[in-house]
Amino acid sequence: MKSKCFYCFLFLIFLGFQDCCEGRWLLASPKPDRDNAAGYARWLVSHSSWGILRNVVSFSDGVVDKSTGIPYFYLTTLDPTARNALKDHRSSLTISENPLGTCGNADPENPVCAKITLTGKLVLLDANSKESKFAQTALFTKHPEMKGWPKSHNFRIFKLKIKNIFMINWFGGPKPLTVGQYLKYKM
Amino acid sequence: MKSKCFYCFLFLIFLGFQDCCEGRWLLASPKPDRDNAAGYARWLVSHSSWGILRNVVSFSDGVVDKSTGIPYFYLTTLDPTARNALKDHRSSLTISENPLGTCGNADPENPVCAKITLTGKLVLLDANSKESKFAQTALFTKHPEMKGWPKSHNFRIFKLKIKNIFMINWFGGPKPLTVGQYLKYKM
Repeated sequence: MKSKCFYCFLFLIFLGFQDCCEGRWLLASPKPDRDNAAGYARWLVSHSSWGILRNVVSFSDGVVDKSTGIPYFYLTTLDPTARNALKDHRSSLTISENPLGTCGNADPENPVCAKITLTGKLVLLDANSKESKFAQTALFTKHPEMKGWPKSHNFRIFKLKIKNIFMINWFGGPKPLTVGQYLKYKM
Repeated sequence: MKSKCFYCFLFLIFLGFQDCCEGRWLLASPKPDRDNAAGYARWLVSHSSWGILRNVVSFSDGVVDKSTGIPYFYLTTLDPTARNALKDHRSSLTISENPLGTCGNADPENPVCAKITLTGKLVLLDANSKESKFAQTALFTKHPEMKGWPKSHNFRIFKLKIKNIFMINWFGGPKPLTVGQYLKYKM
């Protein structure tokens, strides 16, 4: 039997192929410097395809050439996540860098493997708005199977209006980062 | 260039090698039938190495031949997760099946890609107890780098005392599953 590291090597080759299989391997740009808090946060959100928002949910913050930093969701009110959000909008989305495969051998809890929590309000978008159309394209591009999700399940487009950001991407505690710095950062 | 699916194939070969690289690829047993709610929940918790508990945290529910279903954590009070837990014990741990690589091409939000939320109380273990020694072995086996985490950071062992389970692993809403059924299930 070949050394196991041979297979690790094959895996690394695999990671280099950027449009294979699933959104979580789509690494279109390299990881920014860790001291570039806004850049790192935007990179992490833009490249991730899922996180925890009361439950595991998929999201997208834009299309390939237009990342907004705003997480958009396609949720059904059959699920408590969306149902509860319509009653109490307060929500937070937590994302780990681990699924991107860019933490090397670092344990998921190690501060060098980044984690971000975006806290704010989860709001339903007006289905006829320009933003809703953009969000739908952003979601369907990153999550192609959403196009075929059953109409009868009443999926709606939501966004997280970010009020606060908590990101750890190195030792020394959370990085100071305002919502304004985060949103205006150009990817 | 070879077809991208050639690399997907290599990736699948890689997944078959069970003790390569990181805990998240340690798939020691096959996915149970989806109607076996207790079995599926225990499989998902036992094979996963991280989840969201207010923030991204690593955990372990046992050692290779002894899975307990109880998530144990190694947390520093320098982090708000542990600090807040000492004031208000109510916590929930959410885990996605996605990082295990067993969801095929299913989107992370698709109900066939399982997600589980264990709700309960996060409690600090007495460092001299038998359970704490077992938990430490469970954690250090699944997360070897924890052994070297700085003593000065005051890492302590916590467990989640599970009060409620919410698991989706197929269409049709959450699977009925009591904490008793979950804990007594033999892996």
